[in-house]
Amino acid sequence: MKLQVTQENFNHALNSVARIADTHGTLPILANVLIKAEKNRLSVAATNLNIGITHFVGAKIESGGAITVPAGLLASFISSLPGGVIELELENKKLKITTDQYNSTINGISAEDFPVMPAIESGETLTFNAADLKKGLQQVAFTASSTDSRPVLSGVFFHSLEGKLFIVATDSSRLAEKTINVKVPKIELLVPASAMNDLLRILDDEVKEIKIVKDEQQALFSFGDVELVTRLIDSTYPNYKPLIPTKSSVKATLKRADLLNIVKVSSLFARETAGSITIEVNEADQNVKIKSLASQLGENNAQAPAKVAGSGSITLNSRFLIDGINAFSGEELVFSFNSNLEPVLLKDPKATDYVHVIMPLKA
Amino acid sequence: MKLQVTQENFNHALNSVARIADTHGTLPILANVLIKAEKNRLSVAATNLNIGITHFVGAKIESGGAITVPAGLLASFISSLPGGVIELELENKKLKITTDQYNSTINGISAEDFPVMPAIESGETLTFNAADLKKGLQQVAFTASSTDSRPVLSGVFFHSLEGKLFIVATDSSRLAEKTINVKVPKIELLVPASAMNDLLRILDDEVKEIKIVKDEQQALFSFGDVELVTRLIDSTYPNYKPLIPTKSSVKATLKRADLLNIVKVSSLFARETAGSITIEVNEADQNVKIKSLASQLGENNAQAPAKVAGSGSITLNSRFLIDGINAFSGEELVFSFNSNLEPVLLKDPKATDYVHVIMPLKA
Repeated sequence: MKLQVTQENFNHALNSVARIADTHGTLPILANVLIKAEKNRLSVAATNLNIGITHFVGAKIESGGAITVPAGLLASFISSLPGGVIELELENKKLKITTDQYNSTINGISAEDFPVMPAIESGETLTFNAADLKKGLQQVAFTASSTDSRPVLSGVFFHSLEGKLFIVATDSSRLAEKTINVKVPKIELLVPASAMNDLLRILDDEVKEIKIVKDEQQALFSFGDVELVTRLIDSTYPNYKPLIPTKSSVKATLKRADLLNIVKVSSLFARETAGSITIEVNEADQNVKIKSLASQLGENNAQAPAKVAGSGSITLNSRFLIDGINAFSGEELVFSFNSNLEPVLLKDPKATDYVHVIMPLKA
Repeated sequence: MKLQVTQENFNHALNSVARIADTHGTLPILANVLIKAEKNRLSVAATNLNIGITHFVGAKIESGGAITVPAGLLASFISSLPGGVIELELENKKLKITTDQYNSTINGISAEDFPVMPAIESGETLTFNAADLKKGLQQVAFTASSTDSRPVLSGVFFHSLEGKLFIVATDSSRLAEKTINVKVPKIELLVPASAMNDLLRILDDEVKEIKIVKDEQQALFSFGDVELVTRLIDSTYPNYKPLIPTKSSVKATLKRADLLNIVKVSSLFARETAGSITIEVNEADQNVKIKSLASQLGENNAQAPAKVAGSGSITLNSRFLIDGINAFSGEELVFSFNSNLEPVLLKDPKATDYVHVIMPLKA
């Protein structure tokens, strides 16, 4: 293996890939990146067995070959180099890296010992506008469960229904669903939310299109110079649709910034109740109020004007509510519920493609 | 106490002050800020008994008074409020905070129980250009010892000599000295480096002048709307001047960015030697070289062109060298030493007001 690549391109690829490398695992080679020279490109890949990312880089290849080297060291090393051309050469399981000012040798482990990156030969294909999918995942993925106690809830579920594609996640305390207008065959796909967070991290703004191909056990997301393969979660996603409220007896429409503000401030006084706050919607006063009474700290009353139909109060986890409000970007927000035992629905009055649902706490 | 203040001003003052409040100490009231209304201003103060910061804020005072309330809660609360006028009113040791949308009550502790902030009646006075002092402290304070094993080394030493003012700090492995051209009486002042870091944190760019008044036990730094009082370290500063090399048999002048780069990259290969690297200065090749040989990782040879007089090599802690190089801002740097057992001197060839000295390690 012998090739030339620019520091800028190699560094960019290592930045995408190196964080996936698994330095805490039992298999030392998983802490390495696989560097492979073939045809007119260099591939840089890492995997933690759940997810694998391969980043392709244009390079001037003199001879092919492959090696694995420690991901952290190589990424730090290349990022510290000044811009310009870097020469890579493999000699006896040692990767030689040469520039004007540097010549370094990093000890490698044979590429043959690297776990075969999951590959997908063929399967159902979906094509997304990259900006739409990115926005949807940003709005949805954070509501997945971050623990493994119920693996099915640690996933983001893609599924088609009546010609539309839905992306949904829930940790059973809250749920987010995004609708994307895309021509789809019938599809169901349950991917780990962690893989979608990795995808969001490495997705460049210039990428226009994301293709997804799936088989029984895994899915390939390809975009720009990157291929991300993730295992699928092998479970049936719960029938979540009935959890999204379809009617509301209490409904307030208010400025999103106002609601965020009163919830944030009230949460400061909610330490004694582990963050729970009670939101009052008042038709007579046409406002939304939050009262917090903390015996140690003091008390707080916050209110914001709103267009209100129906009155009532409901107790929520303030952190979930802050997360939910932050998932929207419009100026106004509709906050509605049916009774204090049923979930709250958050919606943008001008956008129907995203709903956010939060389960109430006992008052 | 009853007054009106803008959220912007109050928030700014709390940001300066609240971090000083001591939430880990044994005296619960030190976790509070002292709010005091007097004449046409509000003062916001906190202390951890080593340092006290008071920030004055213009306010419309209806009636005077004082109270202390938890610093963290008040700072988070005020920073979450939207901009505009806030009314503060004291009622029975409860601080009532009212805006259009909020009315809150924070339980306080009587101001009489708050430790008296150290005050300085009169003493020697020094006046600095704020930008000069800021730059000097940034270049010097980080070299003070961060442990308390030798309290004298945890300080920044201000002293006058032959009509010049010097600011110096050392942790015995490295030393930095800044010269400031300011008319000074004979003065010696040893302040905790932590207090100078607090000063740097809260020093706004608009501040033009910093006044220092000292008495036997403490010093007052006043600038803008802030008064910072720090206790002094009661020790005689070591006679450090002989540690600054006055001659060099080996001297390399090179681009600062080049030196930083080769040291950073080499440090990645210096894990097995706890970060120590050996720098070779070569008169024949007119360059500076760093060779790292790490049996586990591989090896690295880095070099940068330099104007060189004399040849030799010296072993240094790479982290200290990186810190030292970063303390300069000029394009070029002079790296010089006399023998591999004597300290290295870093200097900007175009600025004579700052020297940085690093002790060698055994090769």
